[in-house]
Amino acid sequence: MKLRLLTPGPTPVPEETLLELARPMIYHRTPEFRQLLAEVLKDLQYVYCTKNPVIPLTSSGTGAMEAALASVCPPGSKVICLIAGKFGERWRSICQALSIEAISVTVPYGQAVTADQLAQALKDHPGAMAVCSTLSETSTGVAHDIAAFGKLVAATPAVLLVDAISGLGVMECRTDDWNVDICVTGSQKSLMMPPGLAFLAVGDKAWKLIDKNPNPRAFYFDLKKAKKSLESTGDTPFTIANTLIRAMKVSLKRIKDEGLENIQARQARNAAAARAGFLALGMEIFPTPPNNALTVGKMPAGVDSSAVLKLLETKYGMKLANGQDNMKGKIIRLAHMGYIDQFDIIAALSGLELVFGEMGHFSEPGKAVAAAQRIWAQAVKTGG
Amino acid sequence: MKLRLLTPGPTPVPEETLLELARPMIYHRTPEFRQLLAEVLKDLQYVYCTKNPVIPLTSSGTGAMEAALASVCPPGSKVICLIAGKFGERWRSICQALSIEAISVTVPYGQAVTADQLAQALKDHPGAMAVCSTLSETSTGVAHDIAAFGKLVAATPAVLLVDAISGLGVMECRTDDWNVDICVTGSQKSLMMPPGLAFLAVGDKAWKLIDKNPNPRAFYFDLKKAKKSLESTGDTPFTIANTLIRAMKVSLKRIKDEGLENIQARQARNAAAARAGFLALGMEIFPTPPNNALTVGKMPAGVDSSAVLKLLETKYGMKLANGQDNMKGKIIRLAHMGYIDQFDIIAALSGLELVFGEMGHFSEPGKAVAAAQRIWAQAVKTGG
Repeated sequence: MKLRLLTPGPTPVPEETLLELARPMIYHRTPEFRQLLAEVLKDLQYVYCTKNPVIPLTSSGTGAMEAALASVCPPGSKVICLIAGKFGERWRSICQALSIEAISVTVPYGQAVTADQLAQALKDHPGAMAVCSTLSETSTGVAHDIAAFGKLVAATPAVLLVDAISGLGVMECRTDDWNVDICVTGSQKSLMMPPGLAFLAVGDKAWKLIDKNPNPRAFYFDLKKAKKSLESTGDTPFTIANTLIRAMKVSLKRIKDEGLENIQARQARNAAAARAGFLALGMEIFPTPPNNALTVGKMPAGVDSSAVLKLLETKYGMKLANGQDNMKGKIIRLAHMGYIDQFDIIAALSGLELVFGEMGHFSEPGKAVAAAQRIWAQAVKTGG
Repeated sequence: MKLRLLTPGPTPVPEETLLELARPMIYHRTPEFRQLLAEVLKDLQYVYCTKNPVIPLTSSGTGAMEAALASVCPPGSKVICLIAGKFGERWRSICQALSIEAISVTVPYGQAVTADQLAQALKDHPGAMAVCSTLSETSTGVAHDIAAFGKLVAATPAVLLVDAISGLGVMECRTDDWNVDICVTGSQKSLMMPPGLAFLAVGDKAWKLIDKNPNPRAFYFDLKKAKKSLESTGDTPFTIANTLIRAMKVSLKRIKDEGLENIQARQARNAAAARAGFLALGMEIFPTPPNNALTVGKMPAGVDSSAVLKLLETKYGMKLANGQDNMKGKIIRLAHMGYIDQFDIIAALSGLELVFGEMGHFSEPGKAVAAAQRIWAQAVKTGG
């Protein structure tokens, strides 16, 4: 059986990147590796749309979120956490572990925090040192209006910390233009790499707070030390996952060759097609507004997503994601980012049609795939 | 030119492990991956000689050192750091970053901290919560007597935290028998993997302190959370570098097939051969006592190790390590761990002979390689 990985991270890794991972081991403290690292970080500036330094970490994206908070905010400081799902909650959990006071602005799963809610929170808590948000909330598929959030936060002394782990590269994310002070991402989403690396683009307003922080609760995650090391030696303070960096250059070449705007336009079409297919299958689109990194469908009444996903995997080799925690069984999450293209989406819709049909929940073979096809055909007509 | 990596981490990765790294990406929240992770952690218990749970982290070894200290020791607690080089100093730096009071027991580079020194420190500081040591001090090549340290610390309320990053798997390290309460290692040394993973074997005495710690300065590095997650779901709390875990099973198979004691005996012979070769070249053995993970030679008067290593690399493709920081130019570090075998050692000695000769520091071609050969021939005679 041919296997298809369609989860919102890890995502499939291009064949040429996989082969790069099989190349012999190298030492990391050499001019050649420093050059390679510099090139990768420069390519990431392109993906981030930033002139700010990009800091690499060997960790999951959560490690980079902790690095941001621990480096900027001393214990006892106050932070506004915009919470629309599991990863917004993670910002709050990190605050709690670091003795930072978290002010929660919470919306029900499937909805987005609005700019008005943030404006009110900033008014109510003028002493807040940072605002934490997700770009793509991977647990629900919702998109946050980071451009609007950035405008509001830029007018205050606070900094905006954005978890763009599943969003960067597939959704528009103009780090500098949108005043994102720290933008976090991970390797295993749109960047088409295995997990193991995380990155932060850190701007001047954040560096000023980091420099002034009398008590950064970090050693491995100390951003000041990481920046100093990169500036003075071109190197990381601790051994980095150097073969992942080497492979990442290959995946980044794919991004540069296609062009960021082309990728985002293409994946926006694929997201629209996936949504059309899900609706045709009788699912609702769970998030409002939905983002272009993944499509999250709410199951029709009486249909258990766990059963659907199990049959889809065992019978057709397709791995989509279930809901997490209390969303389990209620939603299906289909990724369209990185090395997942439109023909992977149509395959997924084809598989879902068959499984829904076999389970007695669908009786119009071809309806969902046709709905997706119409989106792409329309795009071709209009030059997409 | 054929390249040879002979640095004390990263070390060469076996071909079958490299090929495993090139296999397609997988999802990590599945029964299959949980099973794989459980097998890898079980294999690591074998390498650690422990029945204690082994906690995996996506980070460098330093991250795991921080995880140990942050999870065990609240801010304001007191810790004894045994410092014989750069990695002993790292324990102290982590303490400082975490507001833990570090009592330094320091010896000059090239020497080992003795059990007597530790006994005195424990007497002088009965309130110390932990003792931090290296097994193999990678910066100088010195070996610490962890068995003796463990006996001393076990008689006190303190816990023994050991950085066995470059030592585990190549040097004897009986975690349980020696009363090592937390034993830290990294993937890129004897475990024959790229960097990116770190591990901690954590014993009951340490878990008790971790459970009682009112203020663990960690989120990503919170060992209590990691253990709870492994116990309840068989999973890590955050996305692990899952393709590295999958590849690690392949490298661990190599260790299990040969057998830990056989590997250690073989590498002890190789270390003895390397030392004999270095002495024949006119170098002194820098560390007392030397360990079996790497051989560190002090340059003869007037010879700059940087020049030697540069010529060795550019002309013969051999990458050995220089000294770090103020040891740069003064020593050469040759690894014999993991996928570096005796014929790699003889190649290194051959290259060093030629380079020393070309630079005018050596005029007896064959002397160093013959010295090493005699060690191995003697071992064959006595059944080694």
